[in-house]
Amino acid sequence: MAHINAHYLDLPGNYLFSEVARRVAAYTTANPEQRIIRLGIGDVTRPLAPAIIAALQATVAEQATPEGFRGYGPEQGYSFLTRIIAESEYAGLGISQEEIFVSDGAKCDLGNFPELFAQDTVTAVTDPVYPVYADTAVMAGRALVHLPCTAENAFVPALPTRRPDVICLCYPNNPTGTVLTKEQLRVWVDYARANDSVIFFDAAYEAFIREPGIPRSIYEIEGAREVAVEFRSYSKTAGFTGLRCGYAVVPRTVSGLAPDGRRVPLNDLWRRRQTTKYNGCPYIVQRAAEAAHSAEGKAQLRQAVDGYLENARSIKKAFEELGLAVFGGVNAPYVWVRLPQGTDSWDFFSLLLQRAGIVSTPGAGFGAAGQGYLRLTGFGDPKDTEEAVKRLRRLQI
Amino acid sequence: MAHINAHYLDLPGNYLFSEVARRVAAYTTANPEQRIIRLGIGDVTRPLAPAIIAALQATVAEQATPEGFRGYGPEQGYSFLTRIIAESEYAGLGISQEEIFVSDGAKCDLGNFPELFAQDTVTAVTDPVYPVYADTAVMAGRALVHLPCTAENAFVPALPTRRPDVICLCYPNNPTGTVLTKEQLRVWVDYARANDSVIFFDAAYEAFIREPGIPRSIYEIEGAREVAVEFRSYSKTAGFTGLRCGYAVVPRTVSGLAPDGRRVPLNDLWRRRQTTKYNGCPYIVQRAAEAAHSAEGKAQLRQAVDGYLENARSIKKAFEELGLAVFGGVNAPYVWVRLPQGTDSWDFFSLLLQRAGIVSTPGAGFGAAGQGYLRLTGFGDPKDTEEAVKRLRRLQI
Repeated sequence: MAHINAHYLDLPGNYLFSEVARRVAAYTTANPEQRIIRLGIGDVTRPLAPAIIAALQATVAEQATPEGFRGYGPEQGYSFLTRIIAESEYAGLGISQEEIFVSDGAKCDLGNFPELFAQDTVTAVTDPVYPVYADTAVMAGRALVHLPCTAENAFVPALPTRRPDVICLCYPNNPTGTVLTKEQLRVWVDYARANDSVIFFDAAYEAFIREPGIPRSIYEIEGAREVAVEFRSYSKTAGFTGLRCGYAVVPRTVSGLAPDGRRVPLNDLWRRRQTTKYNGCPYIVQRAAEAAHSAEGKAQLRQAVDGYLENARSIKKAFEELGLAVFGGVNAPYVWVRLPQGTDSWDFFSLLLQRAGIVSTPGAGFGAAGQGYLRLTGFGDPKDTEEAVKRLRRLQI
Repeated sequence: MAHINAHYLDLPGNYLFSEVARRVAAYTTANPEQRIIRLGIGDVTRPLAPAIIAALQATVAEQATPEGFRGYGPEQGYSFLTRIIAESEYAGLGISQEEIFVSDGAKCDLGNFPELFAQDTVTAVTDPVYPVYADTAVMAGRALVHLPCTAENAFVPALPTRRPDVICLCYPNNPTGTVLTKEQLRVWVDYARANDSVIFFDAAYEAFIREPGIPRSIYEIEGAREVAVEFRSYSKTAGFTGLRCGYAVVPRTVSGLAPDGRRVPLNDLWRRRQTTKYNGCPYIVQRAAEAAHSAEGKAQLRQAVDGYLENARSIKKAFEELGLAVFGGVNAPYVWVRLPQGTDSWDFFSLLLQRAGIVSTPGAGFGAAGQGYLRLTGFGDPKDTEEAVKRLRRLQI
């Protein structure tokens, strides 16, 4: 008999966003006249920036010529891209281009990277959490340590009482939209160093940081290069959710323990994993990502991110005017609304859908500590967001 | 202590093709005047077909407009693509579009699919074998059963004496270029049905089949829909090695056993895996793949594949003229050369590089039974291949 990986049976039936999509589809089928505004999933809505389009067009044209055609590339990414990432994103932080691995997105990297660790690895995740870290651990039959983040602790997780091997941190945070200061992040780097844990630092939203003093990269913290792997994405920063590109930063100095007591650099293991099971991000997409780092590209993308932040601020204000406490939305595209005492977040998700035609994401979908909260995103079209704000003003709760 | 997945230490140090690339780079650095002809890795060299380029250009232009922009798509692929695959590739074979999962390539799918099975899964692989199946099993600490395929058994693997849970079959075969007839493949489908094994059928090279009666899909065999998952790729059939697109066919009727005795469809598990750890193939790439199924696209791609087959025939003939037995190269882009008795394949790889400037792949790199063989590919540029043939004619062995 071929036996399945029974850990899959421990998962919730559907991936969170598939479940939200299912419920929205059922509602729209029953109410075809209602115009739905989608502020649920964190998907960008603005077209690709002119600099990105120009790079794609030029590179596609090259693929029609024998001289310009590119087949298999290096699995870890072309050096034109890893070099510009090292130079423009990690200048002064001691990261070299050999420590950067380009991929088709942070979701894949975060789902695959845990393979490098032993079966009995204990993984710490915040609660609420982006489901990929937790679901991936469950699929591998691994123990989870939950770090509750609520208004009561100002969304700053306390150090765990049980020592984890891997610690997943996402800042600016998805789903709460909150950030850590350098001092707050330093606590975790120091903890990981003292306990020989590895931090997975998900920095997918770093481009949304607007306040000074908030770290964009974990390598701004002393000692992080010994314990942290950082994941970044072009999805939210450059509108690549449909184009797919991201990267992992794996410093040579981050290692894990082999059974014989040797320390093995994770950089070597990740290179082996990616060369064996991955074939690289499409060449044309890597050229598009390169364009995101040009002066022209950066200016265009900054404008797009500013627009999403403006949406987030409007949503935040509208919920505050309803008398609710609202978090995030300043250095992040996510707005995290605390619902009236005792309100179930799936119930409020339904209420908002039925009475205002607004799709949100129920906080409980991100973990037990997300119960009583709701996530909205600033990624909508500005006019749609404005209309949503109007509908929220008319809402009686 | 964060412990590593120690099974990684059981792998050879480098992925085969990385090792070949390393040796070639060392040689070219030492011999910069020698013009190298690369017939080693199975990478296409012809530019993308006009139908593919036109689809890419039109879709890139759409991404610059608010109406045409696409963000996240369905992780399992857009329905425009799964529909055309079901209709044009599996007509009459009982495969529906919900059974097709688009990805960024067969290598990723073959590397990730084994996650759906229990830790103690036993995997059968042919020897020689495309390294991804075997390396993936080693990385997961799983037992392998080797099925030798040599000239002695006409490259038709014998049924195993130890029952495997998963059986990896690749036809047309990489690296030997050989095929199975329907009758020979039926033996395996019947075996899998009788033993409750699951077949991974890698059909990445189906477009190269030219002789009648050779199955292009395993679903041409009765009963295969109960036991087989099929993997296909646009890499070799449509020149997508740099563009990245493939798909897995997971019939609803293929299942594995849960600990409580229930049978769980692999289709459900793969959907859960892909929605959780993958974010879909780029939209523009899926539109390019769609174009490969158009009448115009098909005609253009047929011509390209014919060209690669013509190269393979020339290489085959050149080695035969050297007095060697040569296999494959008729229904496959690969030519599998049997070296003179007692010749080590890495030694012959070096000889061919040093004396003819031709890059090949040593058979031993594909497994113990590949020792004494050499793989060459028809994917080179036609002029380069012609030059390689000339150099082979001058070679004294």
